[in-house]
Amino acid sequence: MIAAKGYAAQRANESLTPWNFERRKVGAHDVQLEILYCGVCHSDLAQINNEWFPGIFPMVPGHEIVGRVIQVGGHVNGFKVGDLAGVGTMINSCGRCDHCHDGLEQYCEEGVVATYNSLDKFGDGKPAYGGYSNTIVSHEAFTVHIPSTLNLAATAPLLCAGITTYSPLKHWKVGKGHKVAVLGLGGLGHMAVKFAVALGAEVTILSTSPQKEADAKRLGAHHFVVTKNAEQVESVKASFDFIVDTLSAEHSFDFYLSLLKVDGVHICVGVPLGGIHLNGALGAFSLLGGRKSIVGSSCGGLAETQEMLDFCAAHKIVADIELIDIKDIHAAYDRMLKGDIKYRFVIDMATL
Amino acid sequence: MIAAKGYAAQRANESLTPWNFERRKVGAHDVQLEILYCGVCHSDLAQINNEWFPGIFPMVPGHEIVGRVIQVGGHVNGFKVGDLAGVGTMINSCGRCDHCHDGLEQYCEEGVVATYNSLDKFGDGKPAYGGYSNTIVSHEAFTVHIPSTLNLAATAPLLCAGITTYSPLKHWKVGKGHKVAVLGLGGLGHMAVKFAVALGAEVTILSTSPQKEADAKRLGAHHFVVTKNAEQVESVKASFDFIVDTLSAEHSFDFYLSLLKVDGVHICVGVPLGGIHLNGALGAFSLLGGRKSIVGSSCGGLAETQEMLDFCAAHKIVADIELIDIKDIHAAYDRMLKGDIKYRFVIDMATL
Repeated sequence: MIAAKGYAAQRANESLTPWNFERRKVGAHDVQLEILYCGVCHSDLAQINNEWFPGIFPMVPGHEIVGRVIQVGGHVNGFKVGDLAGVGTMINSCGRCDHCHDGLEQYCEEGVVATYNSLDKFGDGKPAYGGYSNTIVSHEAFTVHIPSTLNLAATAPLLCAGITTYSPLKHWKVGKGHKVAVLGLGGLGHMAVKFAVALGAEVTILSTSPQKEADAKRLGAHHFVVTKNAEQVESVKASFDFIVDTLSAEHSFDFYLSLLKVDGVHICVGVPLGGIHLNGALGAFSLLGGRKSIVGSSCGGLAETQEMLDFCAAHKIVADIELIDIKDIHAAYDRMLKGDIKYRFVIDMATL
Repeated sequence: MIAAKGYAAQRANESLTPWNFERRKVGAHDVQLEILYCGVCHSDLAQINNEWFPGIFPMVPGHEIVGRVIQVGGHVNGFKVGDLAGVGTMINSCGRCDHCHDGLEQYCEEGVVATYNSLDKFGDGKPAYGGYSNTIVSHEAFTVHIPSTLNLAATAPLLCAGITTYSPLKHWKVGKGHKVAVLGLGGLGHMAVKFAVALGAEVTILSTSPQKEADAKRLGAHHFVVTKNAEQVESVKASFDFIVDTLSAEHSFDFYLSLLKVDGVHICVGVPLGGIHLNGALGAFSLLGGRKSIVGSSCGGLAETQEMLDFCAAHKIVADIELIDIKDIHAAYDRMLKGDIKYRFVIDMATL
């Protein structure tokens, strides 16, 4: 076994504290990374607090992992010691079903193994521990190459926030001629803006906060609409081809559907904890009356994650981040809950 | 003006009683039909009872109208006296917007004029009266040709139940190789089965009532699943490409999403009065976890309605109906609410 250290919650709702644990030995198809940076995802806190489902504890969160390869197994072909490499939201899948074969490991029929808060049922059956740690052992098939030309710390959030917004934009063929609204200007939202702009779409940020406008434009958005301003809302009624919805807080789907054109698509990539509700007959009409769609999308497969990283290298896209010491993780969570972050915290793992 | 008689609700929630009223004179582009048959749609009762929105009274319901042309305006090109003709759910639209130009009049940007319970804002501005009547005056652009080879009475429901299920099946390109589930074996559901089968799909009816199985098979369905039977449900988990959901009663979208494959599409064509709800984070995951879609669709445009009627003639498809006297309309509503109908009531207008 390999000695590892990290920050863990020993029980649900508890603070993260330093914890020493073990990683598996490097198998024939494994690589071992020294973790350099790990992004802080809203879902880290949601899972520590059992907001999704009862979690597996102790829990070492973190699934936006960037590091350097320090050991490779005997049958590893794609990586060598010294390579930059990344691990995202998944570390294993059945490998046999149609979705795994199609590069859609995230939709594995038997259920994917998440990078943490998950048992590696296709491997040693033990709990997986995430990236708030100094090292990780990862199957090479679930490891991606990190471009050397990008800021490394700012690349970490691409592994979740990046692929989660890139994948649906590609799947629904968003591009030139499309009007895209982005809902929620946080970790996912600011990446959605960058990708939609890079793909050629005309991008509007929908926000409750007028003070975000300057920054929205800086990120590349073409328009900014304050959703509390009735006049501004009226000007974008029935105007968008797509809404990329990154919100986890409860919000009115009826309202946002009214901003979509006929055949418009409302893409949910956040996890709205309050659920998704269209209320009563009028709510149903808001969907039926314009042949609209509410769709969901969850991260992206390994091949597409690599494609996204290469796209980012070509377009010089990274996340906007604040680098933090790991001891400040709870202060970071507090600010994240208030939306007081532009736009992703990344832990400098040298501070561990 | 043209003297007309029909059955009307004078106020919301009141019984339908005989009523004499006036139709507009036949304009240059109008045809006048003697109405022979009119289908009874669930939405007729919903609108009499103000379940959708406050209605316009007196209300003459009915939007599945089949009749014979008895008068044509001076500029009418497509119809002559004696032709069989039909009027469906719409009688006017702006005619100028992209959707009207694209043959998607039902999604007119300025809002379509419904066949009843609507003001003809693009015409005389007066309330429109529906098909529970002896005659109707209709713009030829909103009138379709009825094939002479089909049973006329059984053709009436094609004008709403037919096109409402045909249109989404065509839009989402349902056909060979697809597994389609139909939810709700009523007026819309039994048409969805016939169309999906004719388009080459493998069709399963999902029902709470085991006693409907024989009839489901008679309609052409390949499989029948009782949704209260855990074993049967387990056998169809994650198996459908499409669900055609015709229910208006409240139902669990989380549950039905679990029966869809990855990338599966849940098509709402009924109007669920209780709205559409995915509850909590797990509800959201049921959508996100398989890149699934909940979509709505509303009837179909005029060109597509004609296409559907021609498809029906080619495939010898009509609705399964019970022909009723108009004086029995309330008994028919009572039976409709209980689901005690195979599968659509049609009023024989000779009984008026």
